[in-house]
Amino acid sequence: MCRSGRSTNEPVRRAAGPDGDAMTKRVTIVEVGPRDGLQNEAARIATADKVAFIERLAAAGLPVVEVSSFVRPDRVPQLADAREVFSALAPALANAGARPGGTRYTALVPNLTGLREAVAAGVREVAIFAAASEGFSQRNTNRSIAQSLAAFAEVCVEARAAGVRVRGYLSTAFGCPFDGAVDPRRVGELVRQLLDLGVYEVAISDTIGVAHPGQVRSVLDQVRARFSPDQLALHFHDTRGTALANVLAALEYEMHTFDSSPGGLGGCPYAPGASGNLAAEDLIYMLDGLGIATGIDLWKLTAASLAVEPSIGHRLPSRYVNAVRSQRAR
Amino acid sequence: MCRSGRSTNEPVRRAAGPDGDAMTKRVTIVEVGPRDGLQNEAARIATADKVAFIERLAAAGLPVVEVSSFVRPDRVPQLADAREVFSALAPALANAGARPGGTRYTALVPNLTGLREAVAAGVREVAIFAAASEGFSQRNTNRSIAQSLAAFAEVCVEARAAGVRVRGYLSTAFGCPFDGAVDPRRVGELVRQLLDLGVYEVAISDTIGVAHPGQVRSVLDQVRARFSPDQLALHFHDTRGTALANVLAALEYEMHTFDSSPGGLGGCPYAPGASGNLAAEDLIYMLDGLGIATGIDLWKLTAASLAVEPSIGHRLPSRYVNAVRSQRAR
Repeated sequence: MCRSGRSTNEPVRRAAGPDGDAMTKRVTIVEVGPRDGLQNEAARIATADKVAFIERLAAAGLPVVEVSSFVRPDRVPQLADAREVFSALAPALANAGARPGGTRYTALVPNLTGLREAVAAGVREVAIFAAASEGFSQRNTNRSIAQSLAAFAEVCVEARAAGVRVRGYLSTAFGCPFDGAVDPRRVGELVRQLLDLGVYEVAISDTIGVAHPGQVRSVLDQVRARFSPDQLALHFHDTRGTALANVLAALEYEMHTFDSSPGGLGGCPYAPGASGNLAAEDLIYMLDGLGIATGIDLWKLTAASLAVEPSIGHRLPSRYVNAVRSQRAR
Repeated sequence: MCRSGRSTNEPVRRAAGPDGDAMTKRVTIVEVGPRDGLQNEAARIATADKVAFIERLAAAGLPVVEVSSFVRPDRVPQLADAREVFSALAPALANAGARPGGTRYTALVPNLTGLREAVAAGVREVAIFAAASEGFSQRNTNRSIAQSLAAFAEVCVEARAAGVRVRGYLSTAFGCPFDGAVDPRRVGELVRQLLDLGVYEVAISDTIGVAHPGQVRSVLDQVRARFSPDQLALHFHDTRGTALANVLAALEYEMHTFDSSPGGLGGCPYAPGASGNLAAEDLIYMLDGLGIATGIDLWKLTAASLAVEPSIGHRLPSRYVNAVRSQRAR
């Protein structure tokens, strides 16, 4: 409508409350780099390097770090040392519950076996996952969505009995590499089914990095009509550069939990097949500018990202991290 | 406020009109890659390669391409062939006025000498520039802002007499590398001074790539209170990853003209000092998803970006272009 001649010169107000402030005052960043990021890296990272990296993330103030995954080692060799990593973090794990503000260390588990291994390793919080598209569910787990949810129902029952919290991921919620578009109403329905299993929050995930703000609004129109922001998170990959704009769109729906990875770990624009998570530094830079607190020290986090680069053997794709690198090089 | 217990489950409506549509239905993309992009590239590009690149951009449907700059060759050696490039484009230049929908080819001019060279080369539209901060004005042009505007007043008078349209850039409008923060009210005042010179539109520019959506809102609260979107454009660099989120914020102010460069040309995340323009492909992917038309063929534009890479000697930083590259490599 703005093209139909000169429009009014009145500035447009956002739907952000009468004072024009952003809806969200504080955001929780869930750091998935050590799991979702590293599992996509070609170079095998030494266990000690992973532990040092995770400890740096904690020192930067990250409230939640998904440390690893208890999957079959032959499926994800990079994460075959999950038990060793958690063992090294044991003192911190024991502290996390007792010390307010301590970093929570979590693990992805694909099944009951994984849950039991996680519990044996001292993990107090796990994540499960279901797909929003049958094509991805079949190819990724060889099960239908319904079969997958039924299996995770058992995991949730046993986790609850063990006093372990469970987070849920809903993969391919913005598009599937096999089935294409995903109906936002279906996303809303699957969020409900995951919450019914007893997960405390569902991370609606753009597994292949196709989401754009128009889609974020379509999905959140459905999901926010049924659920509180406290039950939801968003998990974006920056494959097509839209991840930060997606977060901005989601903030207007009062969303306040976002997944990211340090430096955008997990994808390198110079590697075929790359599709990194949203870079935590880029996210924090934007949130800082919007006056939204995260409790994270951006400088320390950037240093942690730069310090992990020698282990992974290439530069990380985060724009912010590369701007810092450029300034240092001058 | 969303952290104070469970909030309402009602979805939040954006300030986007009663039907919930985006404010802007059509966006004009001003392609600055051949000028703002190439001038930052280390490798000297052959004139024929530049011309081929520009013709590919036109074939992709770009409505405006800033082709080069008539500056002193010793200051920007990469653009020393401005006359030759325009000479090669002469048939298209002659056509652009006559053929509706033809690409407009423009040039940056720093002074009267540059304007005269541009006019002699057949250019029908030029751009001038002033800084929003004294520190940048002095270091970049060795003049105060007031001196700069006075000099460009003469350029505008002579351009008008020659029937040449003039666009204005306002540099460092979101922050200055020497002076730091820039008062949004000062931006509004300088936009007025540029419009008073007779420029048809002012491109409010984030020269060093520090802008975030909070700042975009602060600046547009000031500027949109005084001027129509038809008199304004935004020019973002993606140095810290926020450029696309900045566009999303600006769309809510009915802004509909944005500068970008193919592939994010002008900065490479792997080069010290990098700070590329917002990548046109990333921008178009987002706008397509929002149902906002640009008239540009994203596939042809991506092909143009990939085709220019051998000339510049490195891969372009656009996330979208790299996603296409990855898919091809599979």
